[in-house]
Amino acid sequence: MTSAHEWLTGSVRRLIDATIRTEVDAEAIAAATEKIDSATAQLSDSLLPGSFGVQTGPDGRPTAWGNVVIGLRNPVAPPLTIHHGADGAVHTDFVLGAAYEGPPGHVHGGVCALILDHVLGATAHQPGKPAYTGTLTLRYLRGTPLGQSLRASAHVERIEGAKTFAVGHITGSDGVTVEAEGVFIHPKGGQRDG
Amino acid sequence: MTSAHEWLTGSVRRLIDATIRTEVDAEAIAAATEKIDSATAQLSDSLLPGSFGVQTGPDGRPTAWGNVVIGLRNPVAPPLTIHHGADGAVHTDFVLGAAYEGPPGHVHGGVCALILDHVLGATAHQPGKPAYTGTLTLRYLRGTPLGQSLRASAHVERIEGAKTFAVGHITGSDGVTVEAEGVFIHPKGGQRDG
Repeated sequence: MTSAHEWLTGSVRRLIDATIRTEVDAEAIAAATEKIDSATAQLSDSLLPGSFGVQTGPDGRPTAWGNVVIGLRNPVAPPLTIHHGADGAVHTDFVLGAAYEGPPGHVHGGVCALILDHVLGATAHQPGKPAYTGTLTLRYLRGTPLGQSLRASAHVERIEGAKTFAVGHITGSDGVTVEAEGVFIHPKGGQRDG
Repeated sequence: MTSAHEWLTGSVRRLIDATIRTEVDAEAIAAATEKIDSATAQLSDSLLPGSFGVQTGPDGRPTAWGNVVIGLRNPVAPPLTIHHGADGAVHTDFVLGAAYEGPPGHVHGGVCALILDHVLGATAHQPGKPAYTGTLTLRYLRGTPLGQSLRASAHVERIEGAKTFAVGHITGSDGVTVEAEGVFIHPKGGQRDG
């Protein structure tokens, strides 16, 4: 990915945050909106016909830059960087801002579910051997704070045929906030992933 | 909320989509980025110190315009409009675009979890009597398509003291894609919601 794309996506992430938190008057908002519409028109001169999907990157490997959790070209994605350890264990460190709010000052419980679905699934996912979610169960222990360092981690509990049983959690400074367990399935045809 | 804010948020949603799908060259991307940064600077002349939280709207009712699922000022939110029926039943109709992608052409399973967490929780949530998620279990039956009409619905199965047991699902043109059941809790102090 060119640095131009990365800079654009980071720029839109900052705009999302300012859109939520701005207190300027209607005139200033209208002026900002005009600039944004102009940028959108410029980017829309040539668009993919649909969503980003999975495309071959410059290094020849498949890339999911549009993915809502890890996509480097998706401003909605934090984006998470998943680190793979031994035996399918994974972790990722991140901070979530105003765009991910549910209860005041806290990450929406459903965003925790989104992140845990992805991170638990990453234990089963392998290049060329995608896995999709069969079931996912979440237990909420305490609120997950916005604006603070968080870690999501997961590991494989066991594998039975095409099924990977994974467990994981999100941890904040006060300990585990949400626990999860899930079953991730490698379909025969490999049609789906993520 | 003034229409200026609504227009701004819609404008940023269109920008997010174009950012993911654009195929213009690096020069055009750089020019668009410059406009976006200028808009962000303008909006940042005055910012809330933190996230949006819940504020009193012009009609005197509490509003969660920053919420990641329903927030009218949050460009990450689709945003969903929750319709409340009898006996705590709720539903919402929506279409999700490229920004919510997981498997190519499909909604990320974790985004389905995010939506179902919110919609099931809405059966328990009452003004002045917030509820938060205790547990949530999701079963994925088939892929949820991007760009097509979807409905999420939920109802209360039973109430035991402070606990509301809710069930629901997302439906697409091919039938139910994801089923969910959850327990939502009214805390004694009412500190959390969403």
